[in-house]
Amino acid sequence: MKCHELKVRVRYSETDQMGVVHHSNYFNYFEMGRIEYLRSLGLVYSELEKEQTYLVVTEVYCKYRASARYDDVLIVRTWVAELKPTRIEFRYEIVKDGDEARQIAEGFSVLACLDKTRKPVVLPGELKDLLATEVSRI
Amino acid sequence: MKCHELKVRVRYSETDQMGVVHHSNYFNYFEMGRIEYLRSLGLVYSELEKEQTYLVVTEVYCKYRASARYDDVLIVRTWVAELKPTRIEFRYEIVKDGDEARQIAEGFSVLACLDKTRKPVVLPGELKDLLATEVSRI
Amino acid sequence: MKCHELKVRVRYSETDQMGVVHHSNYFNYFEMGRIEYLRSLGLVYSELEKEQTYLVVTEVYCKYRASARYDDVLIVRTWVAELKPTRIEFRYEIVKDGDEARQIAEGFSVLACLDKTRKPVVLPGELKDLLATEVSRI
Amino acid sequence: MKCHELKVRVRYSETDQMGVVHHSNYFNYFEMGRIEYLRSLGLVYSELEKEQTYLVVTEVYCKYRASARYDDVLIVRTWVAELKPTRIEFRYEIVKDGDEARQIAEGFSVLACLDKTRKPVVLPGELKDLLATEVSRI
Repeated sequence: MKCHELKVRVRYSETDQMGVVHHSNYFNYFEMGRIEYLRSLGLVYSELEKEQTYLVVTEVYCKYRASARYDDVLIVRTWVAELKPTRIEFRYEIVKDGDEARQIAEGFSVLACLDKTRKPVVLPGELKDLLATEVSRI
Repeated sequence: MKCHELKVRVRYSETDQMGVVHHSNYFNYFEMGRIEYLRSLGLVYSELEKEQTYLVVTEVYCKYRASARYDDVLIVRTWVAELKPTRIEFRYEIVKDGDEARQIAEGFSVLACLDKTRKPVVLPGELKDLLATEVSRI
Repeated sequence: MKCHELKVRVRYSETDQMGVVHHSNYFNYFEMGRIEYLRSLGLVYSELEKEQTYLVVTEVYCKYRASARYDDVLIVRTWVAELKPTRIEFRYEIVKDGDEARQIAEGFSVLACLDKTRKPVVLPGELKDLLATEVSRI
Repeated sequence: MKCHELKVRVRYSETDQMGVVHHSNYFNYFEMGRIEYLRSLGLVYSELEKEQTYLVVTEVYCKYRASARYDDVLIVRTWVAELKPTRIEFRYEIVKDGDEARQIAEGFSVLACLDKTRKPVVLPGELKDLLATEVSRI
């Protein structure tokens, strides 16, 4: 299975009064994991946007299994679960550095490709070719 | 169907460089909708936490159908889809004020009840009774 | 003194593990206060941006005197402290609804006007005229 | 001059519809810079809080000189400008990695020390001794 790992340290502002990371922040971790995964494959997302091709999130899900806390170093594991002509499904798993057997959260996001008029289009050939060999069905 | 409506104006800081609301913010809108729904039923969530009873998000999902933009007034519709001994499932729909036929997003969140030791417990009787007649399966 | 008041309820996600509103959120409250102040004068900032005139923050300051907490209803008081050819200084005071004698925070922000090429320009006549009679030096 | 440098990559969610980092995020960068500076001196702030000693922000300021953009790698320079019995003033400068001569932002924050009852106290001896030789007046 092809999987990318990104380490992220939890910021103070990401905690809430329950003393744990507020659940909305996990979608930023997922996004960062996805972007660094693409960068590791040679695709810099900010360059894609400069060419007026956009990947937009159309669906997200997260299941929270344990709490992440301030100053924790989290490992965001990202992989490609499905590749369709106009959509990509990324899956994610978050664990804590040094306690990697216990899952903190898992989830997915579906991304669609838009052109400069913000209409859905098929994924650019370059992106599709890059991801075609990355799909991991687990 | 019993459904609560909350109006929220989109903040500048909630937009991203695509010119739309960043997808992670919708979970704050959902949370605000849920909290105001409970308040409308007479349950002030901040009071519940003072008694060391916590409702924590264990699962969330959102499907994005159209963009929300800066300064839009959004209507967050919240209802209870399911009530189990230890869990509540809230569902949400977001539309734009003045264009209410077109859905911007829909989603759900599952909440579990924790006691002061942060262990899962059955929902407090008061909360369960309050929500029992609110469940709307649609 | 001409002063605008906006009520904002503290969101759960705005708290941190100290149990209070994280200090970075106050700048969103200031921004919301400023935008609603302008709206009350007849100037809708989102319309200004559609005409490719931008007001950008060049300087901000905040002094924190007491804590704001989850579910508090805050009152954001905003006024214009100074109006220069290319800049506006807004000042702010935040108090808690129902306990308005005690200041929670105070601060200021300086805004500059940019044109569509993102170069500094003099404030549009309409905006300047609108604010000219609002300046309150206290 | 003793100064700590932290690299931070700008997240997509930190941008706003003007295409730049929203000004409120700089205070998170400052906080991260300060925390990593303390860690580099051997003081782990999360450990300090476990002993119920809190450093709280009482004042912050930022001057924005140039825009930071999505995917930029920023360098947050942090130093101690002043050390008083109950307060520390940190100063910050943010530049872009690879374009370090041009300042993006500069600012300061004043932190006070609170005990477990959240009352102001003198800085713990350990912290004071650690910072005493770090003060850089520039």
